[in-house]
Formats: sequence, structure tokens, C-alpha cells
Amino acid sequence: MRAAYIGTAYAGFQVQKNAPTIQQTLQDAFEKLYGKRYPLTGCSRTDSGVHARDFGFTLEAGDDCGKIPVNAIPVAVSPFLPEDISVFGAELVSDDFHARYSVQYKEYEYLVLNSPIRDPFLKGRAYQYPIHADENRMNEAAGELVGKHDFRAFMSSGSDVSDTVRTVNYCKVVREGDLLRIRIAADGFLYNMVRIITGTLLEAGTGKRDSENIRKVLNELDRSKAGFTAPACGLYLNKVVY
Amino acid sequence: MRAAYIGTAYAGFQVQKNAPTIQQTLQDAFEKLYGKRYPLTGCSRTDSGVHARDFGFTLEAGDDCGKIPVNAIPVAVSPFLPEDISVFGAELVSDDFHARYSVQYKEYEYLVLNSPIRDPFLKGRAYQYPIHADENRMNEAAGELVGKHDFRAFMSSGSDVSDTVRTVNYCKVVREGDLLRIRIAADGFLYNMVRIITGTLLEAGTGKRDSENIRKVLNELDRSKAGFTAPACGLYLNKVVY
Repeated sequence: MRAAYIGTAYAGFQVQKNAPTIQQTLQDAFEKLYGKRYPLTGCSRTDSGVHARDFGFTLEAGDDCGKIPVNAIPVAVSPFLPEDISVFGAELVSDDFHARYSVQYKEYEYLVLNSPIRDPFLKGRAYQYPIHADENRMNEAAGELVGKHDFRAFMSSGSDVSDTVRTVNYCKVVREGDLLRIRIAADGFLYNMVRIITGTLLEAGTGKRDSENIRKVLNELDRSKAGFTAPACGLYLNKVVY
Repeated sequence: MRAAYIGTAYAGFQVQKNAPTIQQTLQDAFEKLYGKRYPLTGCSRTDSGVHARDFGFTLEAGDDCGKIPVNAIPVAVSPFLPEDISVFGAELVSDDFHARYSVQYKEYEYLVLNSPIRDPFLKGRAYQYPIHADENRMNEAAGELVGKHDFRAFMSSGSDVSDTVRTVNYCKVVREGDLLRIRIAADGFLYNMVRIITGTLLEAGTGKRDSENIRKVLNELDRSKAGFTAPACGLYLNKVVY
């Protein structure tokens, strides 16, 4: 199935004790719909406060699988979901399909309001960076990240992932007035990877870094050499391709 | 000056007893900035819950007028405003300029999510209308409203306005996927006029009305013959032209 959500009120996707999560809220809604609790698997563990425009997940509904026509599920589950989560697509998949391991690549988008003046409509939905960042400089720096690299320098400490090699399909910055859209697609993402890349690209945009510096940061595998971690509010899981 | 705001938390623009308003919040912010309270006049009285992307207003700052360079005012007042209101433009005007009476025309936009499936990102920002409305039928009906007409049938009771003749410059419906954007510009608007026009056009979009019916509704000057009043959450004051 496909979900969209505003992550502001949730402690990320994955079920946690004592904190509301997307996974639990979805499972609760399907329990109300089917009268039974079924396992639910997500395509990714989005962090606390991160949004999703297109989040893939599976529900193993066992014998109840055919109870509701699959294309009617989004509308049927809607009354049981809070206003900040929506299920907008559903289809039947084969038993060997896995919401997480069958992903070919995912695209994230990071929204930056590049202005000293607030936009109320972007409250909680973009990160405000008041200093002008040049998108051409940012794109030059972003180009260095494309391809297969060890992204250890772009991973927050506290992650226990050992293989930090990922393949970035593209990384592009588009300016629309005061809004910067940073789009990045990869076969997988490390902990806080997009947010650290965003902080690093913004520093490139204000002249603090250049392409050579980005190559050096990649090679040195040292988190402290990369840029700041941009906040969760600007981050969207944009697309999941299976 | 120019302001943008999310109207959800406010009882409209105009100062009221016992309810937070945009006017009062702006005046409070400028009082903190200048250390003195000055008269503030708006281009319109937006209703409770209505949003604005471009709201014109004047501040009569008397002797303090030159205290802060005019183009620095938006950034200077920003720390004193809540996150759902922003002042994004300022310029000096002559004494005969009036925020309300100098308006040539205003454009409103009404956003309809025309889908049975919710979009969390449009929560509180669009009206969800689940039945498919045909935008061509809506545009045909909308065409009847263009020009100089007595819009009494499109005014909620409770208004004490006696001259109900207004000139509509354009009224157009644009579809972007499941989103309908209804844009209407006029030299002035009656109480709930855009919201009643929206309800009426949606009824045209589902086949309940046609152009002939709209002409009849206009001629009969009877509110009960027009469509339902669409809720405030989908309405935006979009542009004010002086």
C-alpha cells in the first residue's frame, strides 16, 4: 500500500514504547477495519518529524486479504486514520514481495525556505535558512555525491550499520523563488544522510565549501568534516520505486 | 505592507473582543517593535479561518515612520509575530492612500480536494469534496458570473450591505490532478460570496446545475436558490491590486 503523512506529531515510522508512531497508527486503523491485528512492514524507518508523500508498506492480512476489494481499501480505512495520515493506494503483491527489501530505490526531497522572511504556509514543512545559498554552487557540490561511495562521513553517530557504501542515482537542487528543493535518490540511505547532505550543500551554497572539499569529506570518512544536520521538518520521503 | 497568514487559529482579520484576530496580532507585533501602538488598516475583513497569501494593510506610524528603513521592516517585525503570520513586504505610501478604498481589485482562490481520499498536506488548507466535479461544466457556469451583476443571491444573510452590485473580472476553475483551484477577481466581494460561488460551481460540476440555472439564480436575487456555502478552510485571499 501507499501512505502519505505529516510526520510532525510522530516519533518516526517504527513502533516505539511510549511514543506515537506511524506504524502503530496504521496498524490500529487496520485493526479497526478488519477486527484483527495484522503485521505491517514499512519500506523504511523514517525519523521523528520526517514527512512522507509516498511511503510503501505491506499488511499481511492472511484470510482477510480478499474481504475488502483491494482498490476500496484506501477509502475504507480512511475513517480510522487521523487527518495527518492517509492511505492512497493499495494492490495485491506476491508472497516473495518485501516492503523493505524489494525497494529498488527511494527519492527524498528536502525543502529549504532560503529567505530571512518566514512563510506561514511552510511552517513545520520546510527549514528556513536565511542566508542566500547559490543553487549552482550547490549543484556542483551535489554532483560529487552521485555514484557508488562510502557515505560514512554523512551518517550520524549512533547508527550500528557496518556497510556504509551506497549508490546515489541523482542529487539535484532546484530553486523556485525562495524555495530550494534538494532531491536525492539512492538504493539506500544511512542514518540522517539526507539531512547531513543538505547541511553540507547549504554550506557549499554560501561559499564555505566547494567540489574539492566534498571529495575530501567523502574520502576521509569522518562525520565531523561534513556539514551540519538540517532539521527533520524539511525532509520528505518522496517516492519509493519497487 | 503585505502580510501572509494561515487563518485557522484566528477569528478573521478585524479586531474583536475575546477572540484572537490578525489585526490585533499585527498591531501587537508593531507595538513591540516601535514601543508605541499605531492604527492599522486592512484591505478587507477576511472571515474566521480564511487564509491570505497577500493581504495589504497600512500602519500609520507617525513620527516613527522613518525609524526603521522601510525595506528592513519585514525582517525587523518577524520576531514579534507568531509562526502563522508573516509580513513580507513594506513600502512608504502617500497620505491619500487607503488600504481598503484604494484597492482596484482583489483575487481570491478557493482550493478543493476533489477526491474521496484525504491528503494530509492539505489538512485545514483545502475543502475535501469527494464526488467528482467536472471542471468544464464548472467553467461554463463560472462564465455566467463574469461582469457587473447584482450578487445578492451569493451573499449570506446577516450582512447589512445595501449595494450588492459587484464587477467580477474573471472566475476560472483549474484542475491539477485531484486539486481544483477556483480563482475569482472582483472590485469587491459580499459576505461569503466566494464560498457560496464555490458551492454553486461544485453543484454545477456534478450536474445539478447548468449555465441557465446560474443566470436564473443571479436574476432572482434569492440566497436560497444558490448553492451551499463551502467552508472557510479552502479560501485564500490571493492578491490585492492597488
